[in-house]
Amino acid sequence: MRRFSHEGHTAHQFDIELNDVKHKVMNMGGLVESMVHDGLDALLTMDAELGAKVSEDDKKANQFELDIDEDCTRILARRQPAASDLRLVITIIKTITDLERIGDEAEKLGRISVKLANERDIPHYYKDLRHLGDHVKAMLREALDAFTRMDVEAAFRTAAKDKAIDNEYSNISRLLITHMMENPGHVSHALDMNWCARSLERIADHACNICEYVIYLVEGQDVRHANLDEMRKRLL
Amino acid sequence: MRRFSHEGHTAHQFDIELNDVKHKVMNMGGLVESMVHDGLDALLTMDAELGAKVSEDDKKANQFELDIDEDCTRILARRQPAASDLRLVITIIKTITDLERIGDEAEKLGRISVKLANERDIPHYYKDLRHLGDHVKAMLREALDAFTRMDVEAAFRTAAKDKAIDNEYSNISRLLITHMMENPGHVSHALDMNWCARSLERIADHACNICEYVIYLVEGQDVRHANLDEMRKRLL
Repeated sequence: MRRFSHEGHTAHQFDIELNDVKHKVMNMGGLVESMVHDGLDALLTMDAELGAKVSEDDKKANQFELDIDEDCTRILARRQPAASDLRLVITIIKTITDLERIGDEAEKLGRISVKLANERDIPHYYKDLRHLGDHVKAMLREALDAFTRMDVEAAFRTAAKDKAIDNEYSNISRLLITHMMENPGHVSHALDMNWCARSLERIADHACNICEYVIYLVEGQDVRHANLDEMRKRLL
Repeated sequence: MRRFSHEGHTAHQFDIELNDVKHKVMNMGGLVESMVHDGLDALLTMDAELGAKVSEDDKKANQFELDIDEDCTRILARRQPAASDLRLVITIIKTITDLERIGDEAEKLGRISVKLANERDIPHYYKDLRHLGDHVKAMLREALDAFTRMDVEAAFRTAAKDKAIDNEYSNISRLLITHMMENPGHVSHALDMNWCARSLERIADHACNICEYVIYLVEGQDVRHANLDEMRKRLL
């Protein structure tokens, strides 16, 4: 397994600072992961209270982003890191933008769950939404693991799952369109469901971005907008 | 008018490098601006060829992102910038992420225009979409101007327009829901229109982010997730 370990420093304090900020990113990752879990749960069990909690948690995620960005700026200014340390700081700056947006998407799930909490019955397409949600949660979990362990193989493996999730989303979207055409009275509700499915699909995109940053960090190669299959063959 | 000028350097070469990368950002801004213009035009005039051009342009926007990111990493590694120079580089790293995503949204407009090019007639709600598009284009234009001139007042003024655009989007969305309920056969087409309106609204969000980076750069104060009205009173 190929992993990443950042340069040995004579400056012990610098190591501590880098590790601190990396730990903050993991904590932020844990927070948005639980937000996605809660947001989906709130939606599928029509639990408005849980949905409202996700909105509250989003403020914490926003604060994490500001704090970590400040830490990174301070490290860049005072420590003037080079090589893999510099890549680590840049990777963190990018990663937290995606984590913050995952938080925003989870917050949307929570918000829609609050709006729909008084609906009478749980439509049958909730099953598909749950499946999609489970896959997206697993992908996010794996992306965060790849980040924690700086595991480039896991990052490639996880990023490759994005296509299946895109397909799953398209299927749900088609199902919802048919449902709307057959039941014009359900248009508004079905549209909300489509937004939720879309949010889940976007979360998977952000997880995929995080995987690409891990690959950049470990391999020093920017793989965004590239064919990941080819890149994997070339790099591993 | 409050503007920003970065620190005077003894290292003349460093000034040139910073200006070069800033110019690349402006060029990238010009590119995505024209993509939004073309994407909207392709949609409203049902011009599939123009829509396909936007997809091609998206590759250029992606390449800009990679190039500028590489420039920024090299500047951080070799020049170890401090204070406002460091903020400028960090601002650029963040700005190009938003520009790249604006390109993605424009590309979606182009893609939908290709899909819809064979539709028989132009629905009446295209008028509303054109209005929204005009407002979003103006906001993007102003955000890029604020960045070019590092004009914090303009940045505050522009960011404040996001709310009106959110409202405009909500109105279109409501209109489309009613349209779908009354014409179940149009559900698929109306959903596509909703995606387009949504893309335009997201472009305004990204323009707003760029304004917030300009404020951070000039004032040294991170205003993301803050109440911009209050921040403006405090800072200006």
